[in-house]
Amino acid sequence: MSTATEVQVNVRPLADRVLIEPAPAEEKTAFGIIIPDTAKEKPQRGTVIAVGPGKTDEPITVKVGDTVLYGKYSGTELSVDGKDCLIMRESDIYAVIG
Amino acid sequence: MSTATEVQVNVRPLADRVLIEPAPAEEKTAFGIIIPDTAKEKPQRGTVIAVGPGKTDEPITVKVGDTVLYGKYSGTELSVDGKDCLIMRESDIYAVIG
Amino acid sequence: MSTATEVQVNVRPLADRVLIEPAPAEEKTAFGIIIPDTAKEKPQRGTVIAVGPGKTDEPITVKVGDTVLYGKYSGTELSVDGKDCLIMRESDIYAVIG
Amino acid sequence: MSTATEVQVNVRPLADRVLIEPAPAEEKTAFGIIIPDTAKEKPQRGTVIAVGPGKTDEPITVKVGDTVLYGKYSGTELSVDGKDCLIMRESDIYAVIG
Amino acid sequence: MSTATEVQVNVRPLADRVLIEPAPAEEKTAFGIIIPDTAKEKPQRGTVIAVGPGKTDEPITVKVGDTVLYGKYSGTELSVDGKDCLIMRESDIYAVIG
Amino acid sequence: MSTATEVQVNVRPLADRVLIEPAPAEEKTAFGIIIPDTAKEKPQRGTVIAVGPGKTDEPITVKVGDTVLYGKYSGTELSVDGKDCLIMRESDIYAVIG
Amino acid sequence: MSTATEVQVNVRPLADRVLIEPAPAEEKTAFGIIIPDTAKEKPQRGTVIAVGPGKTDEPITVKVGDTVLYGKYSGTELSVDGKDCLIMRESDIYAVIG
Repeated sequence: MSTATEVQVNVRPLADRVLIEPAPAEEKTAFGIIIPDTAKEKPQRGTVIAVGPGKTDEPITVKVGDTVLYGKYSGTELSVDGKDCLIMRESDIYAVIG
Repeated sequence: MSTATEVQVNVRPLADRVLIEPAPAEEKTAFGIIIPDTAKEKPQRGTVIAVGPGKTDEPITVKVGDTVLYGKYSGTELSVDGKDCLIMRESDIYAVIG
Repeated sequence: MSTATEVQVNVRPLADRVLIEPAPAEEKTAFGIIIPDTAKEKPQRGTVIAVGPGKTDEPITVKVGDTVLYGKYSGTELSVDGKDCLIMRESDIYAVIG
Repeated sequence: MSTATEVQVNVRPLADRVLIEPAPAEEKTAFGIIIPDTAKEKPQRGTVIAVGPGKTDEPITVKVGDTVLYGKYSGTELSVDGKDCLIMRESDIYAVIG
Repeated sequence: MSTATEVQVNVRPLADRVLIEPAPAEEKTAFGIIIPDTAKEKPQRGTVIAVGPGKTDEPITVKVGDTVLYGKYSGTELSVDGKDCLIMRESDIYAVIG
Repeated sequence: MSTATEVQVNVRPLADRVLIEPAPAEEKTAFGIIIPDTAKEKPQRGTVIAVGPGKTDEPITVKVGDTVLYGKYSGTELSVDGKDCLIMRESDIYAVIG
Repeated sequence: MSTATEVQVNVRPLADRVLIEPAPAEEKTAFGIIIPDTAKEKPQRGTVIAVGPGKTDEPITVKVGDTVLYGKYSGTELSVDGKDCLIMRESDIYAVIG
């Protein structure tokens, strides 16, 4: 049993917030999705590692383990057990992939 | 069976978001619609390739395969299986054509 | 049967959007309405050629064929079968005339 | 029967909009109301000549023939049968007088 | 019977608007309330002379004859039968005194 | 019986407004609360002397006599029977102490 | 029995506000969470020492004793019994940890 995993589940986002571990930068993903290098804002890819309980009228629709795309400037950085993570509102997530 | 198609359906937009493959730039469309070259903002044309589940009080009204018109600066670029796509909220789409 | 007409009905505005064909500029309309030449914003006149389904709590109240007045800078230009048209939200329309 | 009157009722404002014919500028009105000449924004006076159907949760409370006070910069000018009129939202009207 | 009084009740504010006759400027009021001479915005005092019917979910709570305190820059000036008055939304009124 | 007290209850705040008498500036309060001298906005302390009836969906939760903390720049100054007071919305109050 | 503790519970935040005692700055927390030193806004960590009653449609979800993460510039400073604390809205809190 990994102590690291224990620590991760100990971060419980509030309301509609989601904790994401960004994927390492890579040109070509396993799913054939390439983030184009253009002037437009580019989405980022990461893995959901914790989700909040949602709001009364807005249940959370992503789940732990989902690979998601989100805006380049979304969220607030924090480090969980040595991994750089991001916490953001679910509305900052564009899509689930894979 | 095309592997490319498999990959495309793997992008599941959240909430009221829609994934669109922009049409190649052309002066005259098959439907007789010409995007005028004026000072006003010009809409763009593309094909819906994935839609979100909608919001509780705002079901999604476009469907996969629809040809749609949307604002020139709408959405966020991402590349799906080598195709440049756009993900945007359905409210950024003006109309369905064809 | 006119092919042009067929093409026009193929543009289906989303939600509360309305497709309008602007009237040619003229000083005096058939209904005795003159757009005054003053410093204030001047409304424009056009004919509704397609309407969206409305929103849940905001049904569309104009209908195809209505002559409408709208703000000078309202809407987005697009060309339908060679005619310059405008697509705008119904709330950008001031009044129905005639 | 006046043709002019016929033309006026042909302008049907949408939603919560009201069509007003401004009163000619005068220092002292029939009702003893004087628009003071100060630095503050001064209300204007006019006659309602057409009203919209209102919104679902906001019925229109002024009626055709009412003399109303409204903000100096409210509304959009249009000319109905040779008369300069204003079309504005009912919320831009301060009061009914007389 | 005063004609002046007759004229006053002829101004019927719309919705949540209130017609107020400002009190003449004085340092010490009958109720012992002094408007301090500081850098902060100072409230003004006046008498309600007409009230609107309120909004559906916001009934008017002041009544004709109430002495009220309101913001220095609140409302729009108009003159009713020779008296300088102010018309404002009830939400611009801070308190009823006396 | 103090006339001063009589005068105070004569100020009836509207809606969600609260009348507060600020505490004299002091470094250390009776409750051991010190307002730190830092770059951040510092809350102020005062006593509630009158409260409005609240809004339909927002009942007032402070009561006359409560010692409250509020933002440094909150409210509008007025003087009640010689005392400098503040009138503000209840949402500008951070907490009740004591 | 500590008098200090008595004083703390005497601060009752209003509505959706929460009183937090910030954790002393440290590079590595007991839970393995490191606040990274980057250009992005960094969350802060603290302990909830009092919570408001919540709003009608937004019950408070954190509780006294929770260790929480919040934005660097969130809240208003106040000192409770010699401890520097922060009072902020619950929506300024990102997550509960531990």
